[in-house]
Amino acid sequence: MIDVPSPYLLFLGDAPDALAAKMAVASHRFRPERTIGQLRLEGCAVDLGVPDRTPDEAAARGARALVLGVVRAGGRLSAAWVPTLVAALDAGLDVVAGMHDRLADEPEVAAAAARHGRRLVDLRHSPWTPVVGTGEKRSGRRLLTVGTDCSVGKMFTALHLTDALRARGVDATFRATGQTGILIAGEGIAVDAVPADFLSGAAEALSPAAAPDHWDVIEGQGSLFHPSFAGVSLGLLHGSQPDALVLCHEPTREHLRGLPHRPIPTLSECVAVHLASARRTNPEARLLGVSVNTAALDEAGAREALADVSEETGLPAVDPARTGVDALLERLR
Amino acid sequence: MIDVPSPYLLFLGDAPDALAAKMAVASHRFRPERTIGQLRLEGCAVDLGVPDRTPDEAAARGARALVLGVVRAGGRLSAAWVPTLVAALDAGLDVVAGMHDRLADEPEVAAAAARHGRRLVDLRHSPWTPVVGTGEKRSGRRLLTVGTDCSVGKMFTALHLTDALRARGVDATFRATGQTGILIAGEGIAVDAVPADFLSGAAEALSPAAAPDHWDVIEGQGSLFHPSFAGVSLGLLHGSQPDALVLCHEPTREHLRGLPHRPIPTLSECVAVHLASARRTNPEARLLGVSVNTAALDEAGAREALADVSEETGLPAVDPARTGVDALLERLR
Repeated sequence: MIDVPSPYLLFLGDAPDALAAKMAVASHRFRPERTIGQLRLEGCAVDLGVPDRTPDEAAARGARALVLGVVRAGGRLSAAWVPTLVAALDAGLDVVAGMHDRLADEPEVAAAAARHGRRLVDLRHSPWTPVVGTGEKRSGRRLLTVGTDCSVGKMFTALHLTDALRARGVDATFRATGQTGILIAGEGIAVDAVPADFLSGAAEALSPAAAPDHWDVIEGQGSLFHPSFAGVSLGLLHGSQPDALVLCHEPTREHLRGLPHRPIPTLSECVAVHLASARRTNPEARLLGVSVNTAALDEAGAREALADVSEETGLPAVDPARTGVDALLERLR
Repeated sequence: MIDVPSPYLLFLGDAPDALAAKMAVASHRFRPERTIGQLRLEGCAVDLGVPDRTPDEAAARGARALVLGVVRAGGRLSAAWVPTLVAALDAGLDVVAGMHDRLADEPEVAAAAARHGRRLVDLRHSPWTPVVGTGEKRSGRRLLTVGTDCSVGKMFTALHLTDALRARGVDATFRATGQTGILIAGEGIAVDAVPADFLSGAAEALSPAAAPDHWDVIEGQGSLFHPSFAGVSLGLLHGSQPDALVLCHEPTREHLRGLPHRPIPTLSECVAVHLASARRTNPEARLLGVSVNTAALDEAGAREALADVSEETGLPAVDPARTGVDALLERLR
């Protein structure tokens, strides 16, 4: 387990949209008891609906850390964030981040942490010793969420599936593969930060051999169809050896995230390519259905989107936030 | 360019077979003028056919470095090699390696290098600042070698194709993506060592925009079908945006390298999956033919293997070492 100090102040920085502040938004959604306020810079377009607080105010209310809940492309630290991180350390808080850059590599931040004896926690850099994947079969069962695109709800769906399995009395563990999931779960491996040679090895380590009726519910990353991240997605898919896949989809997306000229692949292509790839390490892999993120639609639009997806794929379609995930889990019997 | 000091002494360590000493074998094959001898430990099963020399003997004959030409799984340093590396530094040589581990992380090696003011060169860790791939189209033409398995001749084929293109007056550049290719070419990025998020970004940086009639010949890595390394292969494929693919194959291989229970995929499956994956970032991608490594066969067996491959795929089949690669390049016209 990673010892994430909480409660914490969520730093949203200058996030232009909720996806840029995904780490803060998801932490507050799934672990609201840990939020002691938000801290936003000028230009921030996100509001968690909690009080804005300075590091000193948060510390006075019992905060133990500031969590850097905003990302930039490439997992880089923004110079604009440094004064806030230093102020947090000056206020006696630890700092938690999920970047590719390490907090201690920023001299001002490292100096402030040393000055106050505070911890710098880099969630994306797991204390895991890299090994190459073997593709060897492991006991226990595994479910992996995969996506038609990046940022379509793979972590969200995996968390809901884990809760729903447990509610049915199934022994299930959420397996975090990214910084936000690790913040929520307190453990995991950020697979996009491991040297590429060890991708499937990381996925194998993340869901080790388990009891035959235990389910690991593994958070997917990226998309097999996204030219920026498909390598990560394939290594995770092979190493996870999933018995079951759930395809996640955002029906209002007009193109791949960040790539205006790249269309979203068709659902039937997604189903076929994911099953073919998964069956290379688990010939029994099957797709339970589609988790559709209908947050951008009204109730009628959502119902229509779910019906369309179900008709196109011949599989159950759910939105965890509207319908729950029972229709997917029924197919596990 | 990476300044690789040469000539050098090739350290084969305790390599159990030629593939384990691939870096030394390939360096001597493609850059024999740089070899000043070999250094082998007890149990080494490889012989380059050059004099065995100690570091002192090599230094006396003008060697400038010892090249660690043997690999262990996972790119780790073996404790058994450390005394030789220290002896090389004591003899006034630099040390060049291509591991995931960094030479300077081994205290005895770091101390010896500091003591003598010698350089430690880690070919697998390129001085490239990671960026996420964009999938944006670049000018110039690109050829990528891909494989039915690992270690089937992708680098070897790419080097031969580069030479053959140049012999035809085509402006062509070999693009190294692994430590051995980087040793030979003096530049490149070891894509399996970059954080996985930056895989396709590394591939994009490696073959930047170029003149419309310039060819980059990119060394493939791993195999889309190998459960240990497929993520690396897919990220490299997407980022390379190849106009042309050459599929490399070893016809006597009975299973995927290192994985006794995993069969080699069929050639037709390989062709189909590679083309479908490549066309996600370059809709014009096509497969020129198959490069068959017939080193394990006699002349009649090799001829038969090439005929079989050609019949199965409907494409030209060559062995660069026996037939040259002209039959592939004819298809570029």
